[in-house]
Amino acid sequence: MKPSYKHIKVIGFDADDTLWVNETYFREAEQKFAAMLSKFETPNKIDQELFQLEMKNLPLYGYGIKGFVLSMVEMALKLSNYTVQNEVIEKIINIGKDMLDKPVELLDGVQEVLENLEHKYRLILVTKGDLLDQERKLEKSKLTHYFHHIEVLSDKQTSNYSALLNHLDIKPSEFLMIGNSLKSDVLPIVELKANAIHVPFHTTWLHEQVTENETNGKSYLTLNSLRDIIPLLN
Amino acid sequence: MKPSYKHIKVIGFDADDTLWVNETYFREAEQKFAAMLSKFETPNKIDQELFQLEMKNLPLYGYGIKGFVLSMVEMALKLSNYTVQNEVIEKIINIGKDMLDKPVELLDGVQEVLENLEHKYRLILVTKGDLLDQERKLEKSKLTHYFHHIEVLSDKQTSNYSALLNHLDIKPSEFLMIGNSLKSDVLPIVELKANAIHVPFHTTWLHEQVTENETNGKSYLTLNSLRDIIPLLN
Repeated sequence: MKPSYKHIKVIGFDADDTLWVNETYFREAEQKFAAMLSKFETPNKIDQELFQLEMKNLPLYGYGIKGFVLSMVEMALKLSNYTVQNEVIEKIINIGKDMLDKPVELLDGVQEVLENLEHKYRLILVTKGDLLDQERKLEKSKLTHYFHHIEVLSDKQTSNYSALLNHLDIKPSEFLMIGNSLKSDVLPIVELKANAIHVPFHTTWLHEQVTENETNGKSYLTLNSLRDIIPLLN
Repeated sequence: MKPSYKHIKVIGFDADDTLWVNETYFREAEQKFAAMLSKFETPNKIDQELFQLEMKNLPLYGYGIKGFVLSMVEMALKLSNYTVQNEVIEKIINIGKDMLDKPVELLDGVQEVLENLEHKYRLILVTKGDLLDQERKLEKSKLTHYFHHIEVLSDKQTSNYSALLNHLDIKPSEFLMIGNSLKSDVLPIVELKANAIHVPFHTTWLHEQVTENETNGKSYLTLNSLRDIIPLLN
């Protein structure tokens, strides 16, 4: 059965890994980081430790590249037992600058989908992380004109979305969220009885992964490609 | 002559150094930083170099504590000609964590002013910097309930305020901005023919300082204390 989206007025698009490549750059950065510190630990152990430190720092730093870089610097000091060379610290900082300066690589079908939906719905960009970084990516993407505005949330939990719907002054049934993360773009939306469509990206950050238990009994649609949205919303 | 604010519907309050202490913590951090690196350079020179590096990194990092810390780490490497000890890098990172974790110290009269205005106007918080950090400070301040919502801008230039007024769907004459920075809270607002009140804080970041040339011929009100706003808006 084709789900009904006839009440939808506003569509929220996640940005990273829904409209453009993001997670891939973090994975590449982690690989470079592990290679630089390979004399102190195995890549696998470095990955694990870095993830744990990121989670520890998350309440203070929040999401985004700058906090990630600060955690890498701190990790390098600890992993090396305070013997890491200054040049390695500099390289870590430069990894971050390169990430912030990366060109935006649009995912398949994005332009076509936005083109098709822009006159029928109010489209907004709903993302978490660093405001400046997200604004910069939106500008580089040349997609700005499709979106009514950009909403940067400090986190994507149910309470953040609830505040967003209030702010937009619409009912849950009138909102559809589209994104690659079950944890951030889909489950909190289902919780609010709004609509969500899941379009997976090939790589998911460990922090965004959910168990089968969490998705059990939840109603949402998973699509293989963003393009498959078009017939559902027309 | 008492200026007329009879068309005002929405009042935007700057946050840092208007509602609560902020710049003081950056100055303290810079002093600690200079002391740690005192064997490489004079405090005055370190201050200057750090400011220049912050300005160079600003387009990439934006405003806020995390970018400031990343610039301090980079500066320590360079100033020491790549000989700074790992322990110093760790201390720099901890300066940043302490700043992010500081309690919020309200400025004089804030509570009284917000209490007085909340039922007559829609109050919003208009700030730049890091979304998570600003949300956290607002929560710690216990002022959340006075504000309709929080607007975090990536910068406070005329174009950012113009987008804000569009988003709020109000005319320039209906908006009043109150803040401590001529550069960020007052001059761009005057440019848009909206209303601005300047309430100086005792310390102004060099980046926020303006020349007499820039303020010449501009109309805005400067008040000695936030409390002086009350009779003007009643």
